[in-house]
Order: sequence, then C-alpha cells, then structure tokens
Amino acid sequence: MVGMLRVLIMNGPNLNLLGRRETDVYGSKTLEQIEAAIMQVADEMGVTVVFFQSNHEGAIIDKLHEALDDFDGIVINPGALTHYSYAVRDAIAAIAMPVVEVHMSNIHGRESFRERSVTAAACTGQISGFGAASYEHGIRAVVQSIKDAADVR
Amino acid sequence: MVGMLRVLIMNGPNLNLLGRRETDVYGSKTLEQIEAAIMQVADEMGVTVVFFQSNHEGAIIDKLHEALDDFDGIVINPGALTHYSYAVRDAIAAIAMPVVEVHMSNIHGRESFRERSVTAAACTGQISGFGAASYEHGIRAVVQSIKDAADVR
Amino acid sequence: MVGMLRVLIMNGPNLNLLGRRETDVYGSKTLEQIEAAIMQVADEMGVTVVFFQSNHEGAIIDKLHEALDDFDGIVINPGALTHYSYAVRDAIAAIAMPVVEVHMSNIHGRESFRERSVTAAACTGQISGFGAASYEHGIRAVVQSIKDAADVR
Amino acid sequence: MVGMLRVLIMNGPNLNLLGRRETDVYGSKTLEQIEAAIMQVADEMGVTVVFFQSNHEGAIIDKLHEALDDFDGIVINPGALTHYSYAVRDAIAAIAMPVVEVHMSNIHGRESFRERSVTAAACTGQISGFGAASYEHGIRAVVQSIKDAADVR
Amino acid sequence: MVGMLRVLIMNGPNLNLLGRRETDVYGSKTLEQIEAAIMQVADEMGVTVVFFQSNHEGAIIDKLHEALDDFDGIVINPGALTHYSYAVRDAIAAIAMPVVEVHMSNIHGRESFRERSVTAAACTGQISGFGAASYEHGIRAVVQSIKDAADVR
Amino acid sequence: MVGMLRVLIMNGPNLNLLGRRETDVYGSKTLEQIEAAIMQVADEMGVTVVFFQSNHEGAIIDKLHEALDDFDGIVINPGALTHYSYAVRDAIAAIAMPVVEVHMSNIHGRESFRERSVTAAACTGQISGFGAASYEHGIRAVVQSIKDAADVR
Amino acid sequence: MVGMLRVLIMNGPNLNLLGRRETDVYGSKTLEQIEAAIMQVADEMGVTVVFFQSNHEGAIIDKLHEALDDFDGIVINPGALTHYSYAVRDAIAAIAMPVVEVHMSNIHGRESFRERSVTAAACTGQISGFGAASYEHGIRAVVQSIKDAADVR
Amino acid sequence: MVGMLRVLIMNGPNLNLLGRRETDVYGSKTLEQIEAAIMQVADEMGVTVVFFQSNHEGAIIDKLHEALDDFDGIVINPGALTHYSYAVRDAIAAIAMPVVEVHMSNIHGRESFRERSVTAAACTGQISGFGAASYEHGIRAVVQSIKDAADVR
Amino acid sequence: MVGMLRVLIMNGPNLNLLGRRETDVYGSKTLEQIEAAIMQVADEMGVTVVFFQSNHEGAIIDKLHEALDDFDGIVINPGALTHYSYAVRDAIAAIAMPVVEVHMSNIHGRESFRERSVTAAACTGQISGFGAASYEHGIRAVVQSIKDAADVR
Amino acid sequence: MVGMLRVLIMNGPNLNLLGRRETDVYGSKTLEQIEAAIMQVADEMGVTVVFFQSNHEGAIIDKLHEALDDFDGIVINPGALTHYSYAVRDAIAAIAMPVVEVHMSNIHGRESFRERSVTAAACTGQISGFGAASYEHGIRAVVQSIKDAADVR
Amino acid sequence: MVGMLRVLIMNGPNLNLLGRRETDVYGSKTLEQIEAAIMQVADEMGVTVVFFQSNHEGAIIDKLHEALDDFDGIVINPGALTHYSYAVRDAIAAIAMPVVEVHMSNIHGRESFRERSVTAAACTGQISGFGAASYEHGIRAVVQSIKDAADVR
Amino acid sequence: MVGMLRVLIMNGPNLNLLGRRETDVYGSKTLEQIEAAIMQVADEMGVTVVFFQSNHEGAIIDKLHEALDDFDGIVINPGALTHYSYAVRDAIAAIAMPVVEVHMSNIHGRESFRERSVTAAACTGQISGFGAASYEHGIRAVVQSIKDAADVR
Repeated sequence: MVGMLRVLIMNGPNLNLLGRRETDVYGSKTLEQIEAAIMQVADEMGVTVVFFQSNHEGAIIDKLHEALDDFDGIVINPGALTHYSYAVRDAIAAIAMPVVEVHMSNIHGRESFRERSVTAAACTGQISGFGAASYEHGIRAVVQSIKDAADVR
Repeated sequence: MVGMLRVLIMNGPNLNLLGRRETDVYGSKTLEQIEAAIMQVADEMGVTVVFFQSNHEGAIIDKLHEALDDFDGIVINPGALTHYSYAVRDAIAAIAMPVVEVHMSNIHGRESFRERSVTAAACTGQISGFGAASYEHGIRAVVQSIKDAADVR
Repeated sequence: MVGMLRVLIMNGPNLNLLGRRETDVYGSKTLEQIEAAIMQVADEMGVTVVFFQSNHEGAIIDKLHEALDDFDGIVINPGALTHYSYAVRDAIAAIAMPVVEVHMSNIHGRESFRERSVTAAACTGQISGFGAASYEHGIRAVVQSIKDAADVR
Repeated sequence: MVGMLRVLIMNGPNLNLLGRRETDVYGSKTLEQIEAAIMQVADEMGVTVVFFQSNHEGAIIDKLHEALDDFDGIVINPGALTHYSYAVRDAIAAIAMPVVEVHMSNIHGRESFRERSVTAAACTGQISGFGAASYEHGIRAVVQSIKDAADVR
Repeated sequence: MVGMLRVLIMNGPNLNLLGRRETDVYGSKTLEQIEAAIMQVADEMGVTVVFFQSNHEGAIIDKLHEALDDFDGIVINPGALTHYSYAVRDAIAAIAMPVVEVHMSNIHGRESFRERSVTAAACTGQISGFGAASYEHGIRAVVQSIKDAADVR
Repeated sequence: MVGMLRVLIMNGPNLNLLGRRETDVYGSKTLEQIEAAIMQVADEMGVTVVFFQSNHEGAIIDKLHEALDDFDGIVINPGALTHYSYAVRDAIAAIAMPVVEVHMSNIHGRESFRERSVTAAACTGQISGFGAASYEHGIRAVVQSIKDAADVR
Repeated sequence: MVGMLRVLIMNGPNLNLLGRRETDVYGSKTLEQIEAAIMQVADEMGVTVVFFQSNHEGAIIDKLHEALDDFDGIVINPGALTHYSYAVRDAIAAIAMPVVEVHMSNIHGRESFRERSVTAAACTGQISGFGAASYEHGIRAVVQSIKDAADVR
Repeated sequence: MVGMLRVLIMNGPNLNLLGRRETDVYGSKTLEQIEAAIMQVADEMGVTVVFFQSNHEGAIIDKLHEALDDFDGIVINPGALTHYSYAVRDAIAAIAMPVVEVHMSNIHGRESFRERSVTAAACTGQISGFGAASYEHGIRAVVQSIKDAADVR
Repeated sequence: MVGMLRVLIMNGPNLNLLGRRETDVYGSKTLEQIEAAIMQVADEMGVTVVFFQSNHEGAIIDKLHEALDDFDGIVINPGALTHYSYAVRDAIAAIAMPVVEVHMSNIHGRESFRERSVTAAACTGQISGFGAASYEHGIRAVVQSIKDAADVR
Repeated sequence: MVGMLRVLIMNGPNLNLLGRRETDVYGSKTLEQIEAAIMQVADEMGVTVVFFQSNHEGAIIDKLHEALDDFDGIVINPGALTHYSYAVRDAIAAIAMPVVEVHMSNIHGRESFRERSVTAAACTGQISGFGAASYEHGIRAVVQSIKDAADVR
Repeated sequence: MVGMLRVLIMNGPNLNLLGRRETDVYGSKTLEQIEAAIMQVADEMGVTVVFFQSNHEGAIIDKLHEALDDFDGIVINPGALTHYSYAVRDAIAAIAMPVVEVHMSNIHGRESFRERSVTAAACTGQISGFGAASYEHGIRAVVQSIKDAADVR
Repeated sequence: MVGMLRVLIMNGPNLNLLGRRETDVYGSKTLEQIEAAIMQVADEMGVTVVFFQSNHEGAIIDKLHEALDDFDGIVINPGALTHYSYAVRDAIAAIAMPVVEVHMSNIHGRESFRERSVTAAACTGQISGFGAASYEHGIRAVVQSIKDAADVR
C-alpha cells in the first residue's frame, strides 16, 4: 500500500438535489458544498477522493465494479436504494473492499420502511444521522478500515 | 402563472407495449393512441403536454428532477415501479409539485402485490381502474391541483 | 340508453360533517357546497344526479340495491367503511354496475389503516386525494365508464 | 319443551339479492324459493320457522336478542358480517341458544378474507358449501342441537 | 360554561343485555341498575347525564354528531365496535370534545382480538376492567377533562 | 346412476379412540357406535356405506384414489391432517367427486391452529361442531351433492 | 379489613423526570406535585398512600413482593416497562391483589409500540390518557376494587 | 418455424463478475467460459444463441422487449432483481414467449430473502442450484418449451 | 465409479394419478408414459434408472435411506410433501448424495402455499415448470451433479 | 402400580441413521449404542424399556395408541414430525399418560423452523440439547412423572 | 479437573415466591424446599452447589460473569426474562461454559409468549415441564455436560 | 459553552467482558484498552471524557438522568438493551442532548433480532461495525453534534 489512499464517495438517487429541496429534512448544504467539505477533510488526511452521483441503480453497480481497480475503499449513501436494492447489496458483497454506508438523516427516526437497510449487511459498517457530517465520519471510518485490513494482511 | 400550463405525462416500465401485448388486461389502445387522446383533452383545456416513457427507473428520476424547471405538474403511471421504487417516491416528494399517479387497471382487483403503492403517498392523489381514460381524468386532476395550489399562494 | 344518464352520489359515515369539523384535513367546503358544485358539473354533462348520505352501513347497502332500478352508475365515498365493510363490498359486487370509489384525502398518505380499501376491489376504479374535486373527477369517470359499458353491449 | 320447536332463519347483508345477481356463485334460486324449500323441510320435521333478512348489522343484533323469548334455535347466514362483526358474535354468545352458521358457498375456496369467520366461534357449529341445501342441513342440525340440549337438562 | 355540565353516557351493541346474560363475565347488574348508580354519582357531582344505548353503529354515529350541540362530554362503551369500527372512531375524532372510552371487563385479559381498540386513539382516554364502576370512573374522568379543557380556553 | 348410492365414510388419525379418551371434548360415543348410527341413517336413505379409518396419511390417500372406482361420494373427517396435509388436499382435488369434510367439535372455537383447514378448499363443503351428528349431516349433504351433480350431467 | 386502607403508588422508569422534560407530552407538573395532589385525594378518601419510584425493573419487582404484607392495593405506572417486562407482569400476577395500571398519556394515540401493554393483563384494570388525573382516577379505582374484593370474601 | 431456433441468454446485475469474485459461492468459471460452454451445447442442438448482460434493470427490460422480434425463447438469470423487480416480471409476462429462469446457486439454501422469486411466476419454469450447468439445463428446457408451444399451434 | 450410474426416480403423493385426473394442470401423459420417456433418455445417457412412487411419507423416507447403498443420485418429485414435510427434508439432508427436486407445474405461478419448498434447501437443486420434461431435465442435472462430485473426490 | 415400570422409547423419522450420517450435528453414536446406554440406565432404575423407531407418522400414532395398554410412560423423539405433526400431538394428548419429548440437538440454536414444537404442548415436558444423554435425562424424567402421578391418585 | 464440581443454581425474577403464590401453576414447594432437594441430589453426585436468586436482570448478568472464575457449570431458570432478555442471552453466550436452562412449567402449554425462549439458544440445552424436578434433571444434565466437555479437551 | 466539552462514554450489559470472551466477534481489545484509546482521541480534541459501564438497565437510566447536569453529550453502546429496552429509549428521549449510539459489530450482518434498534430512534445518530473504532468515530460525531447544536442556539 504505497502512495495515497484512494476513496470513492458515491451518492445514489435524489442526492443531487441536496440543499435545494426538503431542506428541513436534509439541511441546506448542496451536494457541491458537502463535497467541498469532504475534500478538505480528505486533504488533511492525505487521502485522494473522487465523487460519483447517479440516479441509476445500474450505473451505481457499474461504478462499484470499476472501483475494484481504482479505489481502496468506498463511502456510499445509496439513498432510497438502501431499502430494496439487493442488486447493490450483491455488488458491494462482490467487490469485498471496505465500504461504509452513510445516511444524513437518522433512518431509525423516520417512516418505518426507512428503518431497514438491505445493503448494510454487505458493508463494513453504517453511519447515520449526522447530516453532512455523516460523510466526514464515513471517510474517517473507511480509511481506518482500509488501514486495519492492510495490517491484517 | 402566466401563459399555458405545462404538464408532463410520464410512463414507466413496459407501458410502451400498451395495446400490443396483454390486451385483455390493458385494452387494445397503443400508447401512441392514448397520447393522441390525451393531447386532444389537453388542447380543449388549453394545456401544453409533453410525453415521456422509459423502462429505466433512473431515467424517470432524472426526468422528474428536470420537471422542476419545465413543468407545472405531472401525471405519472410508474408501472410496476409503483410497488417497490422508494427512489421514485423520494423523487416525487423532493420536487414538491402537483403529481397525480394513474393506473389503467384497478390495482385493488389484481394480484395482492399490486394493491400497495409506495409512490402514492408522495403524490397529490391517485386514480386507478379507468383504462386509457385514467390519463384523461389524471390530466384534469393535475390541472385542478395546480390551479388550487396557485390560488393558495 | 335513451334519455339522461342518472348517477347516484353516495356518502358514508361522518361525511355529513364536511366543512364543519377537521377542516384542516377535509377542507372548509360543506357537503351542501360540494353537492352544489357536483350539480353544476352534472348539468354541464347533461347528467341527472341524486345525493344520498348515511351513517348507517345497512342504509347504504339498501340504497345500493335500490340503485339497480333507478341509476346507471354510482360515485361512492364510503368513509371509514372503506377499511372494513365487506358487506358494502359485496353489495357493490352484486349490483354489477359502474361504481367509482372516491376519497377527498390521499388515503396513502395518512394512518396505515386507511391505506387499505376492502371495497375498491369491487368497484370500477378509485380516485383519491383531490379534496372536493375528487367527486367531480368521479362523476366524469363514472359517466365515461357507463358509456364504455354501453358501447360494449 | 312442549309444543312445536320454533326456529328463526336469519339472513344478513345482500342475501335478499339471491337468485337475481351473481347466480354463477350463489345459484339461481331466489331467497323466496329457498325459504319455500326450507318451509317444506320444516313442515316434515314438525318445526315452526320464521324468516328474517336485513342488511343492517344492528337489526340483526336486535333480532337475535328478541329471539331469546321467541325461539328455540337459530340458523344464521351472516353474509359478509361473518368476517368482521364482533358485535354479531357477541350477540350470539350472549343469547346462548343453539345457533348454526350456514354459508351457501364454500368459504374455504374463495378469497382469503372469506376463510375466516369471527362469528362461528360463538355458534354451535358451521355448515358451508352446499348452496341452498346448506339451510336445509342447517335446520336439521339446529333441531338436533336443541333436542340434545334438552336431553342434557 | 355556565350551568350544569351535560354528559352523554353511550352504550354500544349488546350492552342492553347486561346483568341478564353472561353474568360471570359482566356481573349481575342490569344496565338500568348501572345507570341508576351513575345517576347518583352524577347528582353528587352536579352533572346532568343522559343515557343512550343502541345496537346500531349508524345510530351511535348519529348520536355522536348530535352531541356536538347538546353535551359537554361523553362516556362511551362501544362494545364490540371497539375492535373494528373505524367509522365510530372517525365520528369521535370529528366532534373533538372530551370522550372517555370505558369497558367493564379488562380487555387486555381476554381473547386477543379484544386487546386492540381502534376507537381509543380518537378518545381522550380509556378506562377498562372495573365492572360497573368503570362508568363511575369514566364520568369523573370526563368531567375533569371538560374542566381542564375549559381552563385552557 | 342405477342402483344404490355408495358412500365412503373416512376417519383420519386418532378417531379410532373416540369415546374412549377425551370424552369431554369429543363425547362418549365410540367410533363403532357412531358408525352404527350412520348405518341406520344410510339405511333410511337407501344408501350403501363403507367405513374406513386409518392413522396413516398415505393409507388415506390410497383409499381416496381407490374410491374413484368404488364410490359415488365421500364423507371425511381428516382429524389433525386437516391442518397441514396438502397431500390429502391434492388427493381430494384429484378425484373430483363430492367430498364433505366433517368435524365433531367446532374447529372455530378451539386452539387457533385448528381454525384453519387446508383440506376444505378441495371439498364440496364443510360441517363442524355437531358431535357425532356431524357425520349424519355429512351423509345427507354428500348424497344431496351427488344427486345435484347427477342432475347437472 | 380494620383501619385505613393502605395503597402503594408506584412509578417506573423516567417518571422521576415528570414536569422537567418533555412537558408537551406529559404536562408541566413534577412528580412531587402529582404526589401532593394524590395525597390530598387520599386524605379525602381516608386512605394511606405511600410513594415509590424506581428506574430499576428489579427494584419494582422487589417492592411488588414486599407490598404483599404492607398494602391493600397498588396503583402502578410502569413507564416503558409496560411494553416488554413480562417479569413485572408475573410479579403483579403473583401477588394477586388489586393493582391498577395507569398512564398519563393515551397509549393508543402514540407510537404503535406503546399501544400494547404486557402488564395490563395481570392487573385489575387500566386507566390511560388523563394526565396527572390518571393517578387520581387510579386511586379511586383501586380503593373500589379493594372494597369489592372484601365484600366477596 | 423454419430455420434455426434463436435463443437469448440474459444475465442480470453482477453476473459479469462471475469467476472473479466470491468463487466459493458461484464457482471459478468466468462468464466468458460459461458462455463458451453454452455455445457448444447450442451448436450440438442446432440453436443460435446470443448473449446479453447488464447491471441495469431498464436495459434488461428494453432487451426483453426487443426479443419479441428477434428470438424464439429466452434463458434469464436476473441476479438479485429476481427478488424485487416486478418491472422485469411484467416485461416477461408481456412478451409471452418461453422464458426459463436460471440460478447457479440453490436459492432455497441461502439467505431467506433469496428464497422468493417475484419473476418466476411470469416464466415458463425455473432451474436453480447446478452452478454453470444451470444454463445448459436452461437452454435445453427453453428449446423443449419452444418446440412444445410450436406443436400446440 | 465403475459401471453404469444408477439413478432413482421418486414420486410422492398423488403422482400415480398423472394423466388420469386434472389433465389441464398436469398434462395428459400417465406416469407410465412419463417413465417410459425417462427410460429412453436414461438409455441414451447410459444410466440405469429405477422408479418408485408412494403416497406414504414414511415409505419415501425409508426408500431414501435404502438409496444410500443402491443409487448414485436421485430425482424426486415430492408432490405436496414439498410444502410441509420436514421429515423428507431431513432424510434428503442425511443421505448427502446428489438429489434433484422436480415439479411438473411452475410452483411459483399457482396457490401461494405451493411457492414455498421446505425440501429444496436440502437438495442439490430444483427444476420446475416444464411438465413431463422436468424429469428429463432432472435426470440430466443429477447425472451432471454426480459426475461433478466424482471429479472433486 | 405393582411390578416394574414399563417405559416405551420412541424415535421418529431418520433417527435410525444416527451415528452414520451428519455426525457433526448428532454425534457418532448409533441408535443401537444409544439404546444400549439407555438400557443400562433403565436397569439401574429397575425399569423395563422397549424401543420403537419408525419413519412413518401413522405407525408412530398406532404405537402411541397401543402404549395405552402396555406402558406406564413414554420418551419420544419425534424427529422432524415435532415441527408439523398435529396428528402426533393429538395422539399424545389422547393417551394422557406421562410423555417426555426429547431432542439430541438444542432446537433453539438451529434453523428457525426447528424452534417451534407443535407436539410439546401435549407432553409432560421437553428436554433438548444434551446429545444421547437427552434420552437418559428423559427416562429419569418420565419415571419421576409416573411416580408423581401415582402419588396423586 | 481435580476436586468436586461446582455448580451454580440461578433463579430469576419472582421465583423467590415459589410455593407461596400461584401454587396451582408452580406447585406448593417453596424455593427453600426445592433448594434442599437439589442439595441432596448434589450430595449424592458429589457436586458442590451454590444458590442465587434475584429479581434484577443486572444482578443476574453480574453473577453470570463472576461464575467464570467460581463454577464449572450453571443451572438457570431465568423466569420471565427468558422471553425478552437478550442481555442475559449475551451473558450466557459470553461465558461459554455449560449452562442448562430449566423451567418448572411446560412453557409450550401456556400463553403463547411463553413458548419462545430468547435465552435458550445460548445455552447447552433446555429442560421444561417437570415442576421442581426440572432442577434435579438440570443438575444431572449440567454435570454430564461438564464431564463431556472435559473429555473432549 | 465555556470550558472543555464533557462527554460521557456509556457501555451496557456484557461490554465489561470485551477482549476476554468471544474475541472472534468483538476483537481482542479489552474495555480498558478501548477506553485508553478513546482517552487519547479525547485529549487530542480537547474533550473531557468519563467512562461508565453497567449490566443494570436501571443504573444506565439513572446515569442518563444525572448526565443532564454533568455532560454536554453522550456516546452509548447499550449492548443487548438496544433491542428491547424502551425504558432506555425513553431516558435518552427525555434528556434531549446529543446522544450517539455505537456498536462494535455490524448489527445488520448478524442474527435478525440484532438488526432492530429500539433506542436509536431517540438518539442523534448511530454508528456500527467498526470495532473499537466505532467509539472513536462516536466521540467525534457527538462533539460535532454538540457544536452544531450550540451554533443553532
């Protein structure tokens, strides 16, 4: 593991609208502002980050597959796919690298269907409820997990 | 609200096959014929309509987002996505404009999985069971809803 | 089918209180005002309408039976009976004429018990969520259904 | 137990339409024809029968209460009330006389909601699936039950 | 709030049989005896009470609506309607006055279907398990609630 | 259909113990006594009856198959197989002759698992709750059903 | 039953915070103020009351056991233990004295998990929804129950 | 049916990774190797096969629609879409040609969510558990089904 | 593994009636005709097959045990035992040889109880929906599985 | 109760394979070895034991009936019948003698369907999880139960 | 394993009341009498036993932890904690020594909530239904388990 | 908010055994080592931390109440109480300060009962799956939440 760690920050359906709609639930920061803040944390940690957002389940799966060659770990907010996409779950399980699932809102305190994550079981861990900061905690967590995995090998 | 109202008519997976397959369930009118009939109703009402059909959940979400700038209201038949796509639901909730869900068949009188709509809760209302006429009732309903919302403002 | 179409507009339990109680949920129009608006739409369409409201399940079933001789179609808002009255469902199924179920509020966006309609499966279709306008859409839908049924014969 | 046995034959919602609607499910005999056939069986058995039909749950309960003074046993087809009327169940339980529940169709071979009877638990027994003959079997069963109960005393 | 408080004591299906049937479950006091005892408590409290009993769901709903003009609060034992009548629930919710649900038996210690009350959510509170005394506690509770509500205004 | 009707009376697991064990639930008549009573009814009706009892699901299925050639109808008390034997259900469905399911106790008034019959849906009808008399009602019902079926042909 | 009745007023987890936190749900009276009000009612009724509050399920069970020797009846608000503590339920069942369960809020009108009480089935009865007055109604109810039980003996 | 039969072999999400990831579950053969083996079987059978893989639900639906004109039958492994994509189910139902669902692993012997297939009901049949050989059995099965269907016509 | 492979073809309850009853569901081929066709396939493959059918769960289990010594693999259609016989499941698990479960009809497209197989989890794989051809695909699949297992050893 | 106690040791489906298959789950002792060990314990206790094993539900029920005359108590391991055979349950309930259900593995720590015993409710008690020693504990328990029952008489 | 085996006998909530309350369910022996009987069995077996009872879940967990150093095995009757205390389950799993769960009553023959044990899965085995003798069987079982475990090492 | 932030680190049942038992699931670090690591992070962040562990639900609730006066935020691993302690949930809701729930293992990837957290809904957010690092991420998250809350005020 020579060189900078490379982390992919993925966002699923509707997260491109962050900060522009339903600001009472998701806060007023746009996705661009959140990405800028993540970039700053990443710089401090000496980590290279790349951002990816799509409303297409298939595109997210394609990107997860590509990540096998290009990244050391992933922070993913699958949006509503969290609750039903067994295909995303299988993609995460298949690539077998550190993947941290994040949610801005506390998924345990909203509609009951949001309480269940079908994707989390295939991830290293899950962080939810801290607004935009969930991503920052997520990047720290994934870097830690990458390092732990490297130590084991 | 100056000028003609603009309404987007969206159709989800498999509705491009209307009138060509399973005509005993969905009737013998093709999607083109249905759209022509809708156009006529729209003309009478002085409403501009645009049609969109896709078998891709992601493309439907993208289009819902774009509709924010281009349309005053939406009539959507999400097809089978009705029953599991929380991502489409979140997209409808996010754009917060009048959206009417329509179904040609009576979803309460078929297989039990069709009875439940995960998208309807985010819509203004739902119309089901009137065959091709569901769209006509839908366009009247969305126009009414747009006007009511305008009155409130 | 000579002469004007005759449509029965039925309202179930508690709908006599419309506009006087819980106006935040059901709007401020009284049942009389709604009926007046329906009357106007009916006149434009050249349709005769008769109104019936009862808080008694049995009276609603009796009236549905009588409708066999007196009406060509029915618009019904069964109120809370929607959620448990298999007897009303059987009455609708028995008379086998076009029956449109309407709800003023969006039944998919309230308490979970309201999401399920046991009566809708026996109806031609269902319209919900458009406030008082649900009745207007309902009368158009039932007239269309009567005409379609007549064409088939 | 001197004199002829008196049996009340009760029919719940929509059974007044028998033989006139949905004849493929319930047969082509009208309620009057069925009652005539029952009368003949009753005569042969030396039993006095009285008939009662109502679409009103409350009227059925009132009649069950009155039966305490006027009848020795009851044959009841509660129609769709079978599936949800705990009030009818409690009325049957309260009067504590032989009550036989009958259904013309086989309630186990139709929609799943018809499979469950909330009233049967309070009855002596249940007979379903023999068309109009269910009533004839019912009257024999209730007379037998009345006699058995009398023997015990 | 000048003059004596007026409270309506409502009883649903089968409660007219109190003291005459199933005395092991509901005690040996008749409804008349219970009403006399309530009257005495009411007199001591300086409250006017009126009694109403019906086996008809519709009549109970009608009476609840009338109560809007004639009473300050209601004590209701809906009998078995407790477990399925969303129509009674909606009527209670609509009139928005203090309504106390009472049950003579402990509904938590009998058949499992009795454990659930669909009407209680629309009431101020619920009292169950104290036999005829449930009504006495109910009248005290509703009077207290009326006074509390008056204080707030 | 020349000559006497032939009816098979089948009893499933544990019914050979009738009258010897659990007499409080199933009564004190032995299976032999019940069979003698059935024989008498059959004689009066001019029907030939044959009795069969087995504790083996497979033997019951074998006998149902053989009945195709030897009998005109069947009265069956499947005992506890009622609640889980889809194999017996399929055997009844396969032979497609009048089959009446009988139970001595009221299956709706005991443990909840007894409330559900997986075999009844494949039968002509079901009779439960009349003790030994359930068989007598059953033989009348099956004979009636055989005659009705013959009339149709 | 010579001398004053002795009643234990028990409060479970978190009720020590009453009046200090979440006053919108539970009101602004502190537990001390509520106890003072109860004391006054008790004095009027000539009843000795003792108060006990604990956040420990085990301490509540210990106290229930001790109550066997020291008290004639109990008013208990088990707090959230209501919804899962079968151990508290068994303790109440074991001591077999009049125990009244009280809740300040209407447990039927909040989150669905609060609707179910596992402890109520072991109590004499339940009172919920009257704020601090629930305790007052509870003390009257338990005293009545103690006297009724004494009369029986 | 002149000329060679044309069969489309479709693979859903994540199956492009076969043989490269999770080889303990899915075996070590790559999709290319499996396709080569299928090709050989097809050649022996005189059948033309075309391969299609996508991680996009919408692309799979589009391809199913196109297959109407280009193929005589389909072998499909929908991957995780098997468990929730009612849209793929509807597409299969719409095209009404022989479609065989295959799975490499035994879906009955893994996580419980994999046990249920929402797509299989719309297919001709399902084959699961034979590793790469599931495809070979699938192609034989679909060819047999095509021939059977042709014989019927 | 010298000499010809020996495969046991087992059929459970009611499959002896194949081709004689319910031919619309199961086709018009008798079990003997199906066995003849299987024999031909087996001959082509150089495999010895033995047939066994029983309506007795116990006999099927006994035969499964005996198969340990006499056969290399098994094709089994457990009939309705598929849906509840954990005993057959355990027998299959115990003998730990290649066992392929087959069904003639598509078990995913019938009554909901048929959708679930309790035996399949213990088998190598499952094939359903191809009529009599399911057995032919089954014999190919089991032979393939036997050879794969032999290669591993 | 003169002479030696006689105890029947019954084993259900697949237990004849003990020690020969799946030894990791059930241990390496054969049924014969286990029976020999039981015999030794029985000798020490002065108890006569007889062994019976069958894979046939019906044979187990027959033997349970015969036990009425021949034995004082029973130790039974119903194998997988534990989880669905209401017929075995009824047989145990009918004979009303001390019956102890035993399992070698801990049924609470395996697949979820094994957690539920439909037969245990009809037994005196249940012992599970101690391997072959479960039978030894079972024989002690049944002898104790027989003696306790004798003391009561 | 030199010296006498040390076994801890733990009793959970309400078991201190044994023999004093609800003697019809739990028998008339007090906990002290049961402990004396256990002591005698232990003496015969040459085992040291220590008794511990608490109504506090936390105290039981603390004691389970301490047992790691002081005991070779545990017999535990968790009382009602059996049905919900995942914390006790985790404590038993953590200490990984032979632990036998015992119940005096047959938990399969009472209220349905008692049928499920969340703690048993973490134990070696479970014994229920033998009254006070359950403890005696438990101590034999745990000693056997300790010896078996020692033999393996 | 003058001075250092004070954060309470709470651990529920069985977490005192960390690093000593089940190290394959929870890792080999003891609670002391984890606390030392947390301390180091806290020092770097200029935060005062206090540690608290208890196996007693009541003690945890008491401590949560005390925290109102002494701390600015809380990191809590409720252990198995996570899955059933509504009392802990209510305590967290009552104190209304930033509370972060942490779990070392990924609760979505273990037994199904661990997937559901009844406490998380009352917390600010939840972090699970990162081993001992979950606490470090938790402390960062709670500090961030405290600062965000302070900014809002």
